[in-house]
Amino acid sequence: MNYPGRQAALRQALADRGVDALIVVSPANVRYLTGFTGEGLLLAGETMLLSSDSRYRAEAKVAQVTETVCEPKGHWAGIARLVREAGYCRVALEAQHTSVAALEDLGKELDSVEFVPLRKAIEPLRQRKSEAEIDLLRRAARVTDKALEDFLAGGPLRQSEKLARLDLVRLMLERGAEREAFETIVACGPGSAEPHHTSRDTLLEGPAPLKIDLGACVAGYCADLTRTVYLGTPDTTFRKAYTVVYEAQQHALEAVRAGVAARDVDRAARQVIEEAGFGNNFGHGVGHGVGLEVHEGPRLGATSEDILEEGQVVTIEPGVYLQGWGGVRIEDLVVVRCDGAEVLSQAPKSGPEEL
Amino acid sequence: MNYPGRQAALRQALADRGVDALIVVSPANVRYLTGFTGEGLLLAGETMLLSSDSRYRAEAKVAQVTETVCEPKGHWAGIARLVREAGYCRVALEAQHTSVAALEDLGKELDSVEFVPLRKAIEPLRQRKSEAEIDLLRRAARVTDKALEDFLAGGPLRQSEKLARLDLVRLMLERGAEREAFETIVACGPGSAEPHHTSRDTLLEGPAPLKIDLGACVAGYCADLTRTVYLGTPDTTFRKAYTVVYEAQQHALEAVRAGVAARDVDRAARQVIEEAGFGNNFGHGVGHGVGLEVHEGPRLGATSEDILEEGQVVTIEPGVYLQGWGGVRIEDLVVVRCDGAEVLSQAPKSGPEEL
Repeated sequence: MNYPGRQAALRQALADRGVDALIVVSPANVRYLTGFTGEGLLLAGETMLLSSDSRYRAEAKVAQVTETVCEPKGHWAGIARLVREAGYCRVALEAQHTSVAALEDLGKELDSVEFVPLRKAIEPLRQRKSEAEIDLLRRAARVTDKALEDFLAGGPLRQSEKLARLDLVRLMLERGAEREAFETIVACGPGSAEPHHTSRDTLLEGPAPLKIDLGACVAGYCADLTRTVYLGTPDTTFRKAYTVVYEAQQHALEAVRAGVAARDVDRAARQVIEEAGFGNNFGHGVGHGVGLEVHEGPRLGATSEDILEEGQVVTIEPGVYLQGWGGVRIEDLVVVRCDGAEVLSQAPKSGPEEL
Repeated sequence: MNYPGRQAALRQALADRGVDALIVVSPANVRYLTGFTGEGLLLAGETMLLSSDSRYRAEAKVAQVTETVCEPKGHWAGIARLVREAGYCRVALEAQHTSVAALEDLGKELDSVEFVPLRKAIEPLRQRKSEAEIDLLRRAARVTDKALEDFLAGGPLRQSEKLARLDLVRLMLERGAEREAFETIVACGPGSAEPHHTSRDTLLEGPAPLKIDLGACVAGYCADLTRTVYLGTPDTTFRKAYTVVYEAQQHALEAVRAGVAARDVDRAARQVIEEAGFGNNFGHGVGHGVGLEVHEGPRLGATSEDILEEGQVVTIEPGVYLQGWGGVRIEDLVVVRCDGAEVLSQAPKSGPEEL
């Protein structure tokens, strides 16, 4: 990964805001800038200074940092020492990731330093992916596809959602995932009407819709995939909802292209769903960016101001959720290209005619 | 659970600090006060006002709250509305759990309200457990014990740490855990020298020490258990380290009693380890409180100022960690009683003579 380039881009952003350095708290942001995968805080300025501890010596050694300190009183004490030694006067911090208590403590410890809360200083830099990052996302998508395919081929009946969830995690780990990118969702029957269902003791048994949302994490990069199948012979509701969601996804995929407004992609899917009479049953946006975190920019929703750019990796995931019956969602991971969407997800997806 | 009693105790604590209410962000604290298990924020004052959304309607319905609002602009917007409607002037917030950005936004939205960052407003109330809470911790310990016992009985050889980890999670879920209380640690060989090892692709194969640290969560309450075994015929290092840790734990368990200084319990274990020449190989405290979170007060370490009280539930977990070889830790969950420690963990633990 091009850590020097990322660090240079951040330095420019900090100079534009008139601050000497940024205290990076978010693990994904620390990893993005330096490759460090342990627990710690980063003082990112002219140099990259890491405050961690002896548990993460091996991780610090291979990270792109100038110096690592291990302060016995903790990571924040290490940061205070680094700010003092560097002689910085104006230091930014990540407003959304830093606690009020941490800022209070820093202020007491370093009363001559001005601390400037910033929002999303690094996140915008992370949105457009390099081809090396896209390769990792492609690998993560491949592991995810295979895990789901093998799971469904095994006939996953008569076990609980939460045990089925573990089977999916195992299949991803066996195929090379370092971990699940987020808590795998297995939702059968009425529970599948909740967009983010917590897997419970509900048995996987038909007739019922079964919605599975999972993602492998490979070298820090997250995949995100959803498929919905029907256990048993699909009923009329499923056929109708599935057909609408499938077509909505096709329309949204066709709308993806660099330069397009993110809300127009949402619109493309939503229009199909509204015209079919399910306008009140699709309460979330059609997608979101994915990378070192499973939810990052851009945001693909009805009120988004984002414009899609070449190299962004996003999900396209319309859904229809019917209280008391269940839900259908179909989600793929795609790269935004100048000439359209490059779809990374390859898990089979029944066409409506196959139901 | 006695939610009215907990709420009354918090009201008293807030009155002592001269604030009208507290915005509760920590999920464990929200659950402690109201039983609510979804995502949301609580405005805890004369009444209990919850800001959540439609995904958690079922959870909100059974929670001990006066009113629930679902504000389309999000949970923090809901809290701002509740503060305004209640007419509160001085509102505390959890300094360690609230972000700088959240406080900035609140200040802009409600510029006539004074916000007071508080540390550990609720946590001290949670330390002494009721017998109903101890019963849940006992159940969680039982599930944990059985899962580990069955895992070891199955001869867990030749699989990777991270897949073995999943087996342990499955065994806990099958026995009634709602989830793992923390990321189960399976560490074989040199990796077991890290107190908090992340399970990797290392195979479980001897000759080597195998350290397992796991806990089931039952109705929100967390168990915490560690056992170390040797795969193959124990070598001299293992016999020596195990004997020392075993004896250190016995001494610490004997030292536990209401009214005793927490650091004296640490001392009891540390003295045995120092006298055996391993003083530099035991870098963490001997234990910590456990409840709705796996790490809470009191702290049982060399510099702790805490005094043990009847009804606290704590771990007793000395260890010896040898770089390059591996580590040994033995951990039990115990209730502090007036006449000593009531040990909740019942997983078999070899005596040194059985090695």
